[in-house]
Amino acid sequence: MSRKRGGGRAGNAARRGTASIEQMPWRIPVNTDRPTEPLDEDGVQAIHDGAMTILEDIGIEFLNEEAIALFKKAGCRVDGTNVRMDRAWVMEMLGHAPAQFTITPRNPDKQITIGGKHIIFGNVSSPPNYFDMEIGKKVSGTRKQCADLLKLTQYFNCIHFAGGYPVEPVDIHASVRHLDVVFDKMTLTDKVAHAYSLGKERVEDVMEMVKIAGGLTEEAFQATPHMYTNINSTSPLKHDIPMIDGCLRCARRGQAVIVTPFTLAGAMAPVTMAGAVTLSIAEAVSAIALFQYVRPGTPCVIGTFTSNVDMKSGAPAFGTPEYMRATQMTGQMARFYGLPMRASGVCAANVPDGQAMWETSNSLWSAVQSGTNIVYHAAGWLEGGLIASPEKFIMDCEVLQMIQRYMEPEITATSPAEIALDAIRDVGPNGHYFGIEHTQKRYETAFYQPFASDWRNFEAWEVAGGVWTAERAHRIFKDIMASFEAPEMDEGIREELEAFVARRKEEGGAPTDF
Amino acid sequence: MSRKRGGGRAGNAARRGTASIEQMPWRIPVNTDRPTEPLDEDGVQAIHDGAMTILEDIGIEFLNEEAIALFKKAGCRVDGTNVRMDRAWVMEMLGHAPAQFTITPRNPDKQITIGGKHIIFGNVSSPPNYFDMEIGKKVSGTRKQCADLLKLTQYFNCIHFAGGYPVEPVDIHASVRHLDVVFDKMTLTDKVAHAYSLGKERVEDVMEMVKIAGGLTEEAFQATPHMYTNINSTSPLKHDIPMIDGCLRCARRGQAVIVTPFTLAGAMAPVTMAGAVTLSIAEAVSAIALFQYVRPGTPCVIGTFTSNVDMKSGAPAFGTPEYMRATQMTGQMARFYGLPMRASGVCAANVPDGQAMWETSNSLWSAVQSGTNIVYHAAGWLEGGLIASPEKFIMDCEVLQMIQRYMEPEITATSPAEIALDAIRDVGPNGHYFGIEHTQKRYETAFYQPFASDWRNFEAWEVAGGVWTAERAHRIFKDIMASFEAPEMDEGIREELEAFVARRKEEGGAPTDF
Repeated sequence: MSRKRGGGRAGNAARRGTASIEQMPWRIPVNTDRPTEPLDEDGVQAIHDGAMTILEDIGIEFLNEEAIALFKKAGCRVDGTNVRMDRAWVMEMLGHAPAQFTITPRNPDKQITIGGKHIIFGNVSSPPNYFDMEIGKKVSGTRKQCADLLKLTQYFNCIHFAGGYPVEPVDIHASVRHLDVVFDKMTLTDKVAHAYSLGKERVEDVMEMVKIAGGLTEEAFQATPHMYTNINSTSPLKHDIPMIDGCLRCARRGQAVIVTPFTLAGAMAPVTMAGAVTLSIAEAVSAIALFQYVRPGTPCVIGTFTSNVDMKSGAPAFGTPEYMRATQMTGQMARFYGLPMRASGVCAANVPDGQAMWETSNSLWSAVQSGTNIVYHAAGWLEGGLIASPEKFIMDCEVLQMIQRYMEPEITATSPAEIALDAIRDVGPNGHYFGIEHTQKRYETAFYQPFASDWRNFEAWEVAGGVWTAERAHRIFKDIMASFEAPEMDEGIREELEAFVARRKEEGGAPTDF
Repeated sequence: MSRKRGGGRAGNAARRGTASIEQMPWRIPVNTDRPTEPLDEDGVQAIHDGAMTILEDIGIEFLNEEAIALFKKAGCRVDGTNVRMDRAWVMEMLGHAPAQFTITPRNPDKQITIGGKHIIFGNVSSPPNYFDMEIGKKVSGTRKQCADLLKLTQYFNCIHFAGGYPVEPVDIHASVRHLDVVFDKMTLTDKVAHAYSLGKERVEDVMEMVKIAGGLTEEAFQATPHMYTNINSTSPLKHDIPMIDGCLRCARRGQAVIVTPFTLAGAMAPVTMAGAVTLSIAEAVSAIALFQYVRPGTPCVIGTFTSNVDMKSGAPAFGTPEYMRATQMTGQMARFYGLPMRASGVCAANVPDGQAMWETSNSLWSAVQSGTNIVYHAAGWLEGGLIASPEKFIMDCEVLQMIQRYMEPEITATSPAEIALDAIRDVGPNGHYFGIEHTQKRYETAFYQPFASDWRNFEAWEVAGGVWTAERAHRIFKDIMASFEAPEMDEGIREELEAFVARRKEEGGAPTDF
């Protein structure tokens, strides 16, 4: 299946859809804030030592036979599915992982950098359900809704990559779902795409489609990451068969891997945040060590999804103080291991209201504070990830744009022109700064301009209909849908993608067990 | 008017109203996060040098004649109302200001500490209008609504002081308004109170009422701060007559003073954030230097209210990226001068919805990041301070409680018991942590418990009525009002307060010019 054509790049050039709103330009933000670090050096050592002790003495279960064989070959102590590994070996393997790498999608202008001080954001991924203000209730996801959310993913420059399915289109049979959604993703967006590690066909099909869309030979595909997969461990202490399989397939072909344990403190992890983070670190680095063994230098990211449950109901909670601290602690550990880090934009709220935004703000700001490099679910997430919502997507993008603006160094520049003593002297005690040259020269770019926030006073807002934020977001959503233009794609590439999908559907797609 | 009785304290003991919700205990949070500092050392020096140059070369207008005489006496260069002061003198004066102090209200258990790593929160202050979900529109404030918001101020342990009027009760004549509201404040709350510096009668009356409520002699009153005033400069470059007068009255009697320039970048201040902060610093320290000259050691706080306007409309914006950075920059300057700092919980939103919470979250988290010591308007603020809302108050208190919880060091503790290796070993790869002893011993206090957030899944939430956050907050507001019990007050003190109010009303209260 190697691609012969090296061309097609020209047709992949970025072309934005008709602007429905004024938004900020595409940019990979650089987070220059010193991370918030709740752990002292002893604390970092304690978690590291705890994680290493888990790996050495307790071991991690790897259900994947190939992984077991690899661990044996590497000299780890294997007992059935239980793998124990020495910290020296683990640290040696982690030492191979790059601290920073890029992923290049079909439009090279949309290349993302993961690591260092960069922070990038992606769409909500994998909710089975959908809510919007027009439907007004929770419904099962469809391909149409998934495509709409992909259009938002493409439309907003503050969304840097297309993560998992923004909503699971349950109206498509699971055996061919990945083919249709990835086709939609490849044609509706030109941003970095993701493959679910849920069986070899799904991973391999996505890799082929990314190759086709990018007009890449196998050699070019393998030369640098063009896509990635993200896996969760089966906490506590376990990695399942297909996820490790998918990662091994990606790693061997030079693609990127994110390992994100889902360690809910009090449920699948200790009730203490240090315990939950320690378990998460052990699970993540055990897999990353394996991938480094298989292919030293594999681009890997350590993910955190440590939150807490509601101890009254057992329901997961998100954007809590505990979640924030766990994210910051994991950030410290990621830097300790020299690995890029993933966190999320999450909430427990069911609708795009005040709770949704304080919980999401908490989680997004903790991503900033923790030095997170890649933020999953940064737009559109509700109900602990069970619902995707376009209104929430729009609202979150306002917050993301503010974070992007927050990171622009111009705001805090202190040259004489910015200290503005001449203007202060000229305006004196009786004037104002509205019309003066110092203001005129700068006012168009001096401040963040919102698109979803309404800054009018109450009376003007009321005359305009008194529209609350979620409803305003709905209108913006509709406007964007009405004016959306897909990014350009070479017709030949599009036909090749269609042909691939048709052939793979004929072959039955991916096996399902239902 | 000095009080003869030293007693009455017993009756002032804290007694909480019947609990309508489970809330966190009263506590003065300690913010151990290293502040976020966007300025390097040169940047701090540039703003300092800019502010000092303003004071030395441009000067600040002081309309208050007493202040002018004092500046002359201190050797400053006075030209009409323009005062220029040397940086050496300013820095000498600032050197007298305490880095930390306490204010003790009638209930000494509700003493607050301002400075160091402490962070405390107060109610929204001074909106002329009110909005609640039952009324559904913006209306002029009344004494009843003001009292309701004072009850919320008292009820929530995460609210540490009663700032200005939580809504301006415009149904009371301005000449006696302060008497009625301060009477309500003294009887409905036992927390630290504030006096508006709007004419000598208002300030002196509040001081007398604080003395009566606390059963204090004049000597005891002056021995340590029991209340405070907060003033704004008239930016750019000006301090008006009554505000400086009120501060001088407070300073001379040992009470605390907060100086908060209102420097909207692009309107009353330079369009550049460094310029707006520089102007703000100059205005604030000019007044604080005066108060230190009058009474060295006067407890002073440097306030920030630097935000930006919407350059399309000129309307003020709040909780913006520029606001956050200005707050952080001011935090650096406050530490440079060794002064405690005040910031705010603010938004431009008109109703308690998503925008309200992302803007307020931005402002509150920037208060945390900046090392702010006292946060004004932390609960209940809407429409850039023109509206007070009980629902917003409730919603903000949820965020404040999360911030308080976020600051509890237990969350990030890393002792062996918290790393929990034994539990991880015992549970192994096939169990969960719900029922185990390690969880059972901790689960009641392990995680933040919300009171306004709804963590149920969508279906359970829908069955319970599908209530959005603002409406839930309204119900909580009603519950608290229904069960509110005022803190205990000695009957003799209450009568004395009533008599004072009656007498001062007979005397005509405070003069008004309308």
